[in-house]
Amino acid sequence: MSILQIGAGGVGWVVAHKAAQNNDVLGDITIASRHLGKCEKIIESIRSKNNLKDSTKKLEAKVIDADNVEALVALINDIKPDLVINAGPPWVNVTIMEACYQAKVSYLDTSVAVDLCSEGQQVPEAYDPQWAFREKYEAAGITGILGAGFDPGVVSVFAAYAAKHLFDEIESIDVMDINAGDHGKKFATNFDPETNLLEIQGDSFYWEDDKWQQVPCHTRMMEFDFPRCGNFKVYSMAHDEVRSLKEFIPAKRIEFWMGFGERYLNYFNCMRDIGLLSPEPVTLQDGTEVHPLQVLKALLPEPTSLAPGYKGLTCIGTWVQGKKNGEDRSVFIYNNADHQEAYRDVEHQAIAYTTGVPAITAALQYFRGEWANKGVFNMEQLNPEPFLDTMPSLGLNWEVLELAPCKPQIHILEK
Amino acid sequence: MSILQIGAGGVGWVVAHKAAQNNDVLGDITIASRHLGKCEKIIESIRSKNNLKDSTKKLEAKVIDADNVEALVALINDIKPDLVINAGPPWVNVTIMEACYQAKVSYLDTSVAVDLCSEGQQVPEAYDPQWAFREKYEAAGITGILGAGFDPGVVSVFAAYAAKHLFDEIESIDVMDINAGDHGKKFATNFDPETNLLEIQGDSFYWEDDKWQQVPCHTRMMEFDFPRCGNFKVYSMAHDEVRSLKEFIPAKRIEFWMGFGERYLNYFNCMRDIGLLSPEPVTLQDGTEVHPLQVLKALLPEPTSLAPGYKGLTCIGTWVQGKKNGEDRSVFIYNNADHQEAYRDVEHQAIAYTTGVPAITAALQYFRGEWANKGVFNMEQLNPEPFLDTMPSLGLNWEVLELAPCKPQIHILEK
Repeated sequence: MSILQIGAGGVGWVVAHKAAQNNDVLGDITIASRHLGKCEKIIESIRSKNNLKDSTKKLEAKVIDADNVEALVALINDIKPDLVINAGPPWVNVTIMEACYQAKVSYLDTSVAVDLCSEGQQVPEAYDPQWAFREKYEAAGITGILGAGFDPGVVSVFAAYAAKHLFDEIESIDVMDINAGDHGKKFATNFDPETNLLEIQGDSFYWEDDKWQQVPCHTRMMEFDFPRCGNFKVYSMAHDEVRSLKEFIPAKRIEFWMGFGERYLNYFNCMRDIGLLSPEPVTLQDGTEVHPLQVLKALLPEPTSLAPGYKGLTCIGTWVQGKKNGEDRSVFIYNNADHQEAYRDVEHQAIAYTTGVPAITAALQYFRGEWANKGVFNMEQLNPEPFLDTMPSLGLNWEVLELAPCKPQIHILEK
Repeated sequence: MSILQIGAGGVGWVVAHKAAQNNDVLGDITIASRHLGKCEKIIESIRSKNNLKDSTKKLEAKVIDADNVEALVALINDIKPDLVINAGPPWVNVTIMEACYQAKVSYLDTSVAVDLCSEGQQVPEAYDPQWAFREKYEAAGITGILGAGFDPGVVSVFAAYAAKHLFDEIESIDVMDINAGDHGKKFATNFDPETNLLEIQGDSFYWEDDKWQQVPCHTRMMEFDFPRCGNFKVYSMAHDEVRSLKEFIPAKRIEFWMGFGERYLNYFNCMRDIGLLSPEPVTLQDGTEVHPLQVLKALLPEPTSLAPGYKGLTCIGTWVQGKKNGEDRSVFIYNNADHQEAYRDVEHQAIAYTTGVPAITAALQYFRGEWANKGVFNMEQLNPEPFLDTMPSLGLNWEVLELAPCKPQIHILEK
């Protein structure tokens, strides 16, 4: 058995550690990225933490340009993995899926590109390029598992679990995501600043009354009491799982909400106002053309550098409201992840941890034959039990909290 | 008669308009800068506003690199002006002074470099490179007038006037500067963002108890009621005139204060926190090295573009406290400038207007023989009356306000 992991950023870091801790099932591990040094640093961390469960299995680094299908096919044919995991950014999903198709190897990723910069990648069309592989994968006898992070990913499994066991009829699905941790820096982003700061500027898309609703960012807000974290303001945002949940779990309204602290929003608004978050390049006095976001990226702390000092909890979950046995029901299915515990386990923070752990939890289902049907699948299409049974043993618990049914108090704010 | 003006930014714009309005005295005008187009745009504005008083006199544009003494001497020898005015940035003061010395032509400027980036240019040493020309200028039979803007400049003349007529003994001189105007932009600087944003990050220097006191920026604050503008918080800052006033007007404490709105300070703190105000270059992912402040400069509105929509007043003045005839006295000598009136007069805003008008008011004193002694002089060394008599006719009034003598309530803030 063996896997090929592509990507050696924050998520790749955790995916590799978790794969190593489960290499009795997953077998040999190859980590490939544009920068060999980044792969080697991860391998060094895995070895220093003694996270390679079966030390007779291989753990090695390779260089790959994930934009290049031919190079990907050659690498896959060289390694002959049982599963290719894209632990890197979503804009290489399609090239890697194509390479897997050509090499006849199964595929797994953790997110889809939903942002301002990718044309045709707004929420309603987000999965189209990947769903186009459904028949091809089925015919080739391989499996594609899409969006196997936490959100998207686990939150969709929570929704599938709720639909299967807790509800007869679903009114609303609200995916809720806050980070109540503190990295001790004045301002920093938890993953690539370019991705992060573009993502939160985009219009929000949500599904309501049988159609897509599009509103400017930060104009729909509600407050929610997060277990162990307290009350937070959360804002409606475009996010991957809204698209796939709409496809597979019928509900009147499906929406994603993210919490931002006052301080974060102040920095964000200030940077936006001065034009620093624009995807358009500017020309300096000496004629050099630069992208403001790339300058910001160079100025801000490297996200992976935040991990050692990160403290506190995240809370991500799926708030489902509807009816069971004729009665109103409201349930919040969630996880709390602890930044310091994540660091002790894999030398990284909880944001990357909550994305990387589910990817390997899903990979284990594939290897065990639980999630190995032929074709392309989003997480909510697959049987939730084996996944939810496995996840705690990899480091992420989950809880079901019964709430008083209510009409969510959504505040409409001015842009 | 003729003048050579170097610099075609905001201050240069106003200086050229005011020179044109007074070309019956000043004669032919040459505007020289690194960019011919900027000079030509000013000339176009002067002609469209009919601001050339004597249309038989020449008004022309030249290209010059003001860092190059040889090129400057050649230009001066070509034009043979009676006075060279540096209306550009202060970091070319010394090369232009040297060129004037070699060509034996009088010199005038509007400020001295006091910032974090110019080594040996902190307040105590600010004028040393220019004061080094005193004997040379005297021997050459030429005049050098330093810091002939509003602050430095008019505020120093106010102090000289106070010392001559209003006080027997001076306790404190506080130069107070606020802009209560609104440019309608979320964030913008009134002059070159690089200069502006470096200046306000530097330590403050003030003179007290016979020695220089140095404190971090924004750590000394007081409130002051500005005529026609109301109560403002002002912060102690390093500024040119503190150095020269200390030399020529004895007082126990001499300090400069600038007002910043809450909104401005929020943007400023945010930009500083993310590293955007650092003078150090950063390396982008593609290897390009850029200076964050130059990126910011490219993003922010061009300061000259703010003028048409600018509304409201500035208030700059000199608050002097001390004794007259054995009694405590407190006097605020000040000007209110109106952004819209400035625009109607010269198509620019009041910040540039208050710097450019005094430069030409001083130039007129030189041409009239009132301020034409041989050597190098700061404004407070020269006879205040003819200057103060002329200034209102060029567009800037001044008032003397008697206040109740008090001990200034200076708040010490944490960095």
